Amino acid sequence: MKRIGVADTTFARVDMAGAAVDEVESLGSFDVARYTVPGVKDLPVACIRLIEEESCDLVMALGMPGPEELDRTCAHEASQGIIRVQLKTGVHVLEVFVHEDEAPEDELRELALQRARDHALNAVKLLEGGNALTRSAGTGMREGHPDRGPLR
Amino acid sequence: MKRIGVADTTFARVDMAGAAVDEVESLGSFDVARYTVPGVKDLPVACIRLIEEESCDLVMALGMPGPEELDRTCAHEASQGIIRVQLKTGVHVLEVFVHEDEAPEDELRELALQRARDHALNAVKLLEGGNALTRSAGTGMREGHPDRGPLR
Amino acid sequence: MKRIGVADTTFARVDMAGAAVDEVESLGSFDVARYTVPGVKDLPVACIRLIEEESCDLVMALGMPGPEELDRTCAHEASQGIIRVQLKTGVHVLEVFVHEDEAPEDELRELALQRARDHALNAVKLLEGGNALTRSAGTGMREGHPDRGPLR
Amino acid sequence: MKRIGVADTTFARVDMAGAAVDEVESLGSFDVARYTVPGVKDLPVACIRLIEEESCDLVMALGMPGPEELDRTCAHEASQGIIRVQLKTGVHVLEVFVHEDEAPEDELRELALQRARDHALNAVKLLEGGNALTRSAGTGMREGHPDRGPLR
Amino acid sequence: MKRIGVADTTFARVDMAGAAVDEVESLGSFDVARYTVPGVKDLPVACIRLIEEESCDLVMALGMPGPEELDRTCAHEASQGIIRVQLKTGVHVLEVFVHEDEAPEDELRELALQRARDHALNAVKLLEGGNALTRSAGTGMREGHPDRGPLR
Repeated sequence: MKRIGVADTTFARVDMAGAAVDEVESLGSFDVARYTVPGVKDLPVACIRLIEEESCDLVMALGMPGPEELDRTCAHEASQGIIRVQLKTGVHVLEVFVHEDEAPEDELRELALQRARDHALNAVKLLEGGNALTRSAGTGMREGHPDRGPLR
Repeated sequence: MKRIGVADTTFARVDMAGAAVDEVESLGSFDVARYTVPGVKDLPVACIRLIEEESCDLVMALGMPGPEELDRTCAHEASQGIIRVQLKTGVHVLEVFVHEDEAPEDELRELALQRARDHALNAVKLLEGGNALTRSAGTGMREGHPDRGPLR
Repeated sequence: MKRIGVADTTFARVDMAGAAVDEVESLGSFDVARYTVPGVKDLPVACIRLIEEESCDLVMALGMPGPEELDRTCAHEASQGIIRVQLKTGVHVLEVFVHEDEAPEDELRELALQRARDHALNAVKLLEGGNALTRSAGTGMREGHPDRGPLR
Repeated sequence: MKRIGVADTTFARVDMAGAAVDEVESLGSFDVARYTVPGVKDLPVACIRLIEEESCDLVMALGMPGPEELDRTCAHEASQGIIRVQLKTGVHVLEVFVHEDEAPEDELRELALQRARDHALNAVKLLEGGNALTRSAGTGMREGHPDRGPLR
Repeated sequence: MKRIGVADTTFARVDMAGAAVDEVESLGSFDVARYTVPGVKDLPVACIRLIEEESCDLVMALGMPGPEELDRTCAHEASQGIIRVQLKTGVHVLEVFVHEDEAPEDELRELALQRARDHALNAVKLLEGGNALTRSAGTGMREGHPDRGPLR
């Protein structure tokens, strides 16, 4: 059985991991390993540990960076770390971030939950292999928002 | 036979990989391996896997980052990752990105397809060796746009 | 007994390490190793040495970057280094930075001390394992400031 | 005989490599290995290959980034990669970039050629050892432009 | 006897290395190894070579980045490289940079010399061990400028 790591933060204001786990489990039989850290900058090491110590085949890294310039820099540093984790291990880590200023506060919770669910589907597809998403290549898919569709 | 990896995204709104593969195959006999991921930040690990697991001799990484500041940061992170892949493996990964605000929407599709084709030619040249492009060194070539030519 | 590294700077204007050590010791029995460097850019190597030479199980990296653009860049470089340390070693390094322009000068000392204490609690929790903070996942916790709470 | 790698791009609008090679050869007997890539982001892997496969003792990486914000980011990514190459191999890679907006178009060609020549001299000096440039330390040397001289 | 590496540039307009070496030698008996490179982006590889080939126990990396946006980016790239050197080797590299726009031109030389001397003292302290600077932790020390002192 494939093992999916789910790393999240206490900083986030929505339980994105709960939504991701629900969705993953609705899509098939997977082992799930959780790891919660304070903020997004702590996610890269959590992902490494989920991969190297918990033998996860793929990790979802969920976070909600704040709206300030400093928060944006934190998110950038976290993203660079998450890419490094993948290059070190060869394992996919799907970054699922929702920025607090991406939507009005009353739409933020639903956006975060939907993005987590949409990326859970990506996770399951990627575990099937590098060609499983090829039929959707270049089609303008968007996670958490309606798809944009292909350009004509 | 040389093996070319083609990594692309479901986020892109144009099937750049299709154009790249057509062009590559028109230029010679090559094995092609596809790998599709959600967005540009997932490309680096796809490239690593195409190189290490699929034994590709060169990879084209195709993507269409969005027009927002956050999209620009994503593209920057992806680019840094793509360079790291190359330093880790010693294999060329040609980044073929088209930014959604690089051209008006009605010209974007053709720009993306042309850039993919132009870089397919670069890919084939680079597989011949480090000197194959030397006759064009310093001549102001541009992929997807008309060449600028050398300064006098 | 778990060993916690505490790295700090002579540049900072508050003894954050003192507060962190007091809090850690009030929460249980831990070995503490100190390492003081000039500025935040020297913290990454101090963290590596605390982990590799002093066998620390977790490190807290405390600093107070100045308010100028150059200081912000320094902090960014330090943060990237701190993430790299964690990816190299698999050990958590909690970055506890307070930016000099984050609060009026008369509130800065208390903010720094409180953030150090709050992250000391995070440190102790993380040493229990990746699930110890999961009950607080997505609840909008803030270190040094009142928690924001979950979005409804 | 020392071997100098010369990596350049088809994107550049001036044959900087030609000027660099001429200058190097006027300064002594050196083996020269050329490697031409499409753009500056392809230079890091070319440098790695010149060092690891072509046994170069030093590499010059020549490029002309464009004037747009995106070009600036490309150059930044290339520069970071070039530094990483050096840390991985312990071999000097002299970055010789001329930004298209550094000078009016009619002065750009001469600036690029002069900078290439000036760095060719640096290359030859560095191959003599870490002290060969020490007599010029702190003297405000500028490549491609007149030296600024030391501050009094 | 401890060995201190001193890396500097021909781009700088002040002989900071001279001041650093004088100060280091006034503070005790140390072996000193010099390495001069063209600009700050060449410092990281010089530092690696001082550590790996010259067996330095600590390195000072001295430079004077120019005042333009491009210079600032160069300095940022150099700083990231200097941190990477330290993570690779576990050896301290003290970055001693003075930005040309940090002070009026007639104060710049003295600022650069004083900063070099102040960091020479840090270097000597760090060679004593990670606790040698702990008595000054959180006291607002500044190199090249008067100390700020602790916040009350």
